[in-house]
Amino acid sequence: MTTDFAATRALFDLPEGIIYLDGNSLGPLPRAAIERLDRTARAEWGQMLITAWNRAGWMDMPRRLGDRIGRLIGAPHGTVVLGDTLSIKVHQALAAALELRADRQVILTDSGNFPSDIYMAQGLIRTLGRGHVLRVVEPEEVADAITEEVAVLMLTEVDYRTGRMHDMAGLTDRAHQAGALTLWDLAHSAGAIPVDVTAAGVDFAVGCTYKYLNGGPGAPAFIHMAPDLADRVRPALSGWLGHEAPFAFDPDYRPAQGIDRMRVGTPPILQMAALDAALDVWDGVDMSDIRTRSIELSQAFIAGVEAACPELVLASPRDPLARGSQVSFRHPEGYAIMQALIANGVIGDFRAPDILRFGFTPLYLSPEDIRRAVEILAGIMHNRAWDRPEYRRRAKVT
Amino acid sequence: MTTDFAATRALFDLPEGIIYLDGNSLGPLPRAAIERLDRTARAEWGQMLITAWNRAGWMDMPRRLGDRIGRLIGAPHGTVVLGDTLSIKVHQALAAALELRADRQVILTDSGNFPSDIYMAQGLIRTLGRGHVLRVVEPEEVADAITEEVAVLMLTEVDYRTGRMHDMAGLTDRAHQAGALTLWDLAHSAGAIPVDVTAAGVDFAVGCTYKYLNGGPGAPAFIHMAPDLADRVRPALSGWLGHEAPFAFDPDYRPAQGIDRMRVGTPPILQMAALDAALDVWDGVDMSDIRTRSIELSQAFIAGVEAACPELVLASPRDPLARGSQVSFRHPEGYAIMQALIANGVIGDFRAPDILRFGFTPLYLSPEDIRRAVEILAGIMHNRAWDRPEYRRRAKVT
Repeated sequence: MTTDFAATRALFDLPEGIIYLDGNSLGPLPRAAIERLDRTARAEWGQMLITAWNRAGWMDMPRRLGDRIGRLIGAPHGTVVLGDTLSIKVHQALAAALELRADRQVILTDSGNFPSDIYMAQGLIRTLGRGHVLRVVEPEEVADAITEEVAVLMLTEVDYRTGRMHDMAGLTDRAHQAGALTLWDLAHSAGAIPVDVTAAGVDFAVGCTYKYLNGGPGAPAFIHMAPDLADRVRPALSGWLGHEAPFAFDPDYRPAQGIDRMRVGTPPILQMAALDAALDVWDGVDMSDIRTRSIELSQAFIAGVEAACPELVLASPRDPLARGSQVSFRHPEGYAIMQALIANGVIGDFRAPDILRFGFTPLYLSPEDIRRAVEILAGIMHNRAWDRPEYRRRAKVT
Repeated sequence: MTTDFAATRALFDLPEGIIYLDGNSLGPLPRAAIERLDRTARAEWGQMLITAWNRAGWMDMPRRLGDRIGRLIGAPHGTVVLGDTLSIKVHQALAAALELRADRQVILTDSGNFPSDIYMAQGLIRTLGRGHVLRVVEPEEVADAITEEVAVLMLTEVDYRTGRMHDMAGLTDRAHQAGALTLWDLAHSAGAIPVDVTAAGVDFAVGCTYKYLNGGPGAPAFIHMAPDLADRVRPALSGWLGHEAPFAFDPDYRPAQGIDRMRVGTPPILQMAALDAALDVWDGVDMSDIRTRSIELSQAFIAGVEAACPELVLASPRDPLARGSQVSFRHPEGYAIMQALIANGVIGDFRAPDILRFGFTPLYLSPEDIRRAVEILAGIMHNRAWDRPEYRRRAKVT
């Protein structure tokens, strides 16, 4: 292993006494983000004012940061751009794919896809009003459901509830054999597991940057298009910063070259600045080291929980190669158990109806953290410490 | 006047020796934003981690800040929400309007609309593929072009180049008489001039928050829907945070009540935090005081420039009641003149082909600033100080 995990951990500002197993939902604060935000606000926004769009390189951030993320997902230089939210990027990719396969009517996805991806597809189908069909199958049925009716196969590589991982290369290959395009959501992949969109031949990939990439709450999303597709795509969300010459103020939209046409409006520079600092942490980090360590941590967690808490049922694949970088357990009282865990300094999260989710993020988690987390969870289960009104009372968001 | 402009000016961190006449493009840094960003990063993101979505009120920010902006544009409580970029909000409103007027085919706009609004309309029309027509007329021809073919009248109230202002109430009334809906872009209105979307009967209003509202580079956009429309709109961009129950993870999209259905993805919390601090500046500010002072400043500027620089031609309406809070002059060498001005500490901006734009923002500009700006501009014109290669060389963004 070449990655120094003690060194990467030191780059985060982690609260004292907390074991954070929810980096798959919102990554923690990289120390450098504080200074970077302050500099962006004071020295750039404050002192350079409007001229910072050029002088501080703001206008190029969506592409520059895109390339930094591209390295982590196997995307060539100039094929990833940042902006908007993941839902918007799903819409852009899906609209483009449906236009490129205008003779087909089916969007194929699975029940493990994140609801927002499915909702965006439903909204797009309704808006188009051309009889497209969203076909939702079980994850294990996807391969057989890829027929020549399918315009685009839209999947999230790693299931947000269970961590179950699809065979991205295999399914992409199968989709291409059937003449379909592919749209992969890498929300739980980027920074979590090794990804190579180029080797897999992926057409469109999207993802968010506030989970494993630690870009901060509401950090912008990314989108990648395969180089051979990019110049054929006609953007549905044809915003001025995706124009060939945004500052010519032409009366007609002409798409920019390549991935730049997936830009829409003015980029969120404060979020971009925090994300840029968060990406510094990844310099010198080898994704195969991340994967090795993530498996060590998650296997230790599963073994510990199963030994100490037999009432918790593993909801994730037992084979570490069949899951991403999270582990989930089921329990009918999952909500209250998670509240008790959080009250005792172990932060994971709950996903309806009964899933306790734990993310394993080697950049800042050690084997000792995992040992302690298991011990605290076991104590809560043994003493039924979760069985209190204050833990059962549901907040709006968990 | 009840507004204390010396006090509001002290709330901004303005660079020494700079006269900033470009707050209509990017507002300057409110001092409170620095501390607020630091707190949001350290105490909320850093210490509360994922729990900050509830504990720090992050999840409610799009609505809470929406209400703060609502006060400035005459929108009732609960009818404005923040998120995404202005281009995305234009798309949402336009898609909704076209669905509500499904028997009509025409989007009417004018050549003074901001290009991105026009581009978004072009992209939506192409995506819909149902033969909608974008009719672009000259600003003075709008009223007569409102026929019963028009589904939606889409205008920017204040022209981004000249500052010319439409009669929002009158045109909205005329549109309604013809059975059309209205979509008003308030990018150059919110925080610039008194706006009352309720009195004007506006159906949809959108705007950005990084200009006169000083929310920072890439601050989120806002959208307002008239209360009687909101629950009839079926969102085209149906993201999870616009769902009735985002955390139920239902397989089907069901729109949230009212304006919340215009939320899409995860909100940009760092940008929201900076914007929230920027909105503090508006507490106790009366928009009619802003208007009075803005007219004083802009009239003084026009008088000064016309007296000292006859070669600059006023491109804005001479009647202050016919324009927003900016003044533009034309000159064939506008680009180089603006570069020379910036190099001499007066920041405005240039808009192709020949427009020099100057924004008047009473929160932080004084009559003395205007006097000095005129003096510096006059010096540059008299000495042809703009006629240097370094001022003529065009950067990508200005």
